[in-house]
Amino acid sequence: MHEAIRKYILSYTNEAISDEEYQIIQDAFVPKKIRKRQYLLQEGDVCKHLAFIVHGAMRQYSVDDKGIEHIIHFGIENWWIGDRESFIMLTPSKYNVDAVEDSDVLLLTHEKMQLLSDKIPAFTRTFSVLDQRNFIASQKRIHASISLTAEERYADLAERNPSLLQRFPQNMVASYLGISPETLSRIRKKALSR
Amino acid sequence: MHEAIRKYILSYTNEAISDEEYQIIQDAFVPKKIRKRQYLLQEGDVCKHLAFIVHGAMRQYSVDDKGIEHIIHFGIENWWIGDRESFIMLTPSKYNVDAVEDSDVLLLTHEKMQLLSDKIPAFTRTFSVLDQRNFIASQKRIHASISLTAEERYADLAERNPSLLQRFPQNMVASYLGISPETLSRIRKKALSR
Repeated sequence: MHEAIRKYILSYTNEAISDEEYQIIQDAFVPKKIRKRQYLLQEGDVCKHLAFIVHGAMRQYSVDDKGIEHIIHFGIENWWIGDRESFIMLTPSKYNVDAVEDSDVLLLTHEKMQLLSDKIPAFTRTFSVLDQRNFIASQKRIHASISLTAEERYADLAERNPSLLQRFPQNMVASYLGISPETLSRIRKKALSR
Repeated sequence: MHEAIRKYILSYTNEAISDEEYQIIQDAFVPKKIRKRQYLLQEGDVCKHLAFIVHGAMRQYSVDDKGIEHIIHFGIENWWIGDRESFIMLTPSKYNVDAVEDSDVLLLTHEKMQLLSDKIPAFTRTFSVLDQRNFIASQKRIHASISLTAEERYADLAERNPSLLQRFPQNMVASYLGISPETLSRIRKKALSR
């Protein structure tokens, strides 16, 4: 399972990873199986791990006073999931993270992340590029939310991350887009009839 | 004007900045005055500079086919502004950046940013913390956009960044929140009458 994280880091950086460094990386990441509907994080707990998804599909979401779920992130193969704010600040999380499919993940604690950042230049570089990409992706999503109609937001997601539409059920996609399942259903029918 | 960036970096890190390092920082940042309504970046151009705002108020926005402006970021003292995606990827920007008040900024090119990252640990540390904070702030804004009503989004902004409401005109605040000026006006009246 650890081979996945090595490949991932090498896809982000030109810096080589020595055998010794690879050993440190292997020791830092703890493999875990998370069955469908099982939690990685529950609201109110501090997020102790970031999870690198080797196989599977997961989501991060809040639940409001009316019991409605609001999905802020999806995660599939080669994505990270976890509440970064809680992970860094050690504050109780407002979010839940659970598995939508049976998933294999590699868990990283804050302490081990610090260790890797200090010792492995390729890891530091990977996270720096990742943070930049996340920032850019967040900016696009914020821009979509303030400037696009529900219909355009769906088309935007279908273009940028078509795999998410195949992996996650429609009610979750609606939640991620901030629209009702009924609105999403109407939009999909219209899109298909074109 | 450079003293502002020194103070800013010191507020982010415990690492000391030597006189020699401060000289490198001073040489890297080019001061510029941007008058109200003057552009730092225009749509279609590559974003050549990130601007650190010493004094003033600026905004980053797109203009859609109907001529409507969508403001994605505000910037005031001690904030950065610029299209990070275009800056990093060297792609034409979809955004405009202009001054809402007469502004004093310190400009940083990609090349100089790289130089500072390579040579000044305190600078690298500052940007790493800044990227984390940006990621967290973006996550909050995305969560607000999918889970809160227009009224709640306004209250959320008033709580987290009250200074923005004082510095920017109402029509710009409405654009930033992704609501119409009429809706914002109604929400404000309701909030004031409580």
